[in-house]
Amino acid sequence: MTQNIYDDPDFHAAYMRLPRSVSGLEGAPEWPSLRTMLPRLDGARVLDVGCGLGWFSRWARENGAASVLGLDISKRMLDGARAATDDTAITYARADLEDVALPEGAFDLAYSSLALHYIAGLDGLLAALARALVPGGMLVASVEHPVFTAPATPGWLTDAAGAPAWGLNGYLDEGRREVDWLGTRVVKQHRTVAGWLAALRRAGFNLARLEEWAPSLAQLEKHPEWVNHRQIPNFLLFAATRA
Amino acid sequence: MTQNIYDDPDFHAAYMRLPRSVSGLEGAPEWPSLRTMLPRLDGARVLDVGCGLGWFSRWARENGAASVLGLDISKRMLDGARAATDDTAITYARADLEDVALPEGAFDLAYSSLALHYIAGLDGLLAALARALVPGGMLVASVEHPVFTAPATPGWLTDAAGAPAWGLNGYLDEGRREVDWLGTRVVKQHRTVAGWLAALRRAGFNLARLEEWAPSLAQLEKHPEWVNHRQIPNFLLFAATRA
Repeated sequence: MTQNIYDDPDFHAAYMRLPRSVSGLEGAPEWPSLRTMLPRLDGARVLDVGCGLGWFSRWARENGAASVLGLDISKRMLDGARAATDDTAITYARADLEDVALPEGAFDLAYSSLALHYIAGLDGLLAALARALVPGGMLVASVEHPVFTAPATPGWLTDAAGAPAWGLNGYLDEGRREVDWLGTRVVKQHRTVAGWLAALRRAGFNLARLEEWAPSLAQLEKHPEWVNHRQIPNFLLFAATRA
Repeated sequence: MTQNIYDDPDFHAAYMRLPRSVSGLEGAPEWPSLRTMLPRLDGARVLDVGCGLGWFSRWARENGAASVLGLDISKRMLDGARAATDDTAITYARADLEDVALPEGAFDLAYSSLALHYIAGLDGLLAALARALVPGGMLVASVEHPVFTAPATPGWLTDAAGAPAWGLNGYLDEGRREVDWLGTRVVKQHRTVAGWLAALRRAGFNLARLEEWAPSLAQLEKHPEWVNHRQIPNFLLFAATRA
């Protein structure tokens, strides 16, 4: 079973103060990039995998989706998502993404924001998503980038020229990592870029787009405190089509 | 024009002492992985892009290729390649890969070992390779991995746990890098993983396989001095099919 940090009261309280919790999609700096990977949503049946507070679920409905099913393991997050809408075409359901039962060929788009890197049984989930999509349906997702998840002791070091450099090691060794985030010990799963792409292929997805996201130079001007994050890819964004 | 380091006498002398120059494919630890990406060579017309001393060109002929055209910018390397065979089905030609003229639809396989990361005009070269291949023809190549080419001041640092960590920065900023290698100032071109895959797509190639290569645990047992190189991906290996 996936670790359910979002129902830990302290973690949840800290998470609720993040810009992406307060402001939703507009508070997530990778959203403008991820958004360009989405297909047209008019009439689409959408699956929101790890929906959290439901920001994307509501946005999808506002942008033409016929219906949305949002799945999350956290009761607190689902309570927040449900409280934020009275749209009857959005359904929220509690689910462990390691072991989720979905109707076959029932969705046109599966979307997942920063959730899949928590999933140890990725092959099972991707296979379930492929079955749940119609042929030609799309999976659009963001995950923490492998150079970010790789190190057992992540952190910024200083290179021989005195510049900040991310300490990269452990890259080839895929699997479980434990890191401190918002005062909580968080379990995540490291995979290489090639590992992510191979998992998509095994599940019957064809890669359509790949982006290694970092703040743009325009975003850096507004947020000079993100300067280190411009030095490495922060997130891996991808769009893939179910064969 | 691409920098021609291999015709620099000092660099050439140092390069000729590397295991991959002395022992050929068997001296290149990534070869066993790259080899698994190759299609069957029986009767194939092969283009060896940056053929160096011709080790792969000769191997391709020994493994069923009908003919091989080997291209390289270095006169010294081509002299070495020519001296090593009297096989009339292998042709070697001097070419700047930035600006190479090739017959259309004349090859079944284009192979390139550790050459493409020297090429500034990659789009032009990939387009030329796509035109030179038959539909369904393959490009199989290795390049230095982007985490290796990214830093302006590359090197190993020490992380907070005292472990060796590669100092990663500059990843998002694609373009020219100058590094010291074998006593020479070498110019190469940094591209992100996503940048490599996008360039393949623009040229009309469909990615078939991707590997982020580092020494295997078995290789590490034989070469304990490679321990740091197990921590990061050293090379990006890919196979792509011309649409």
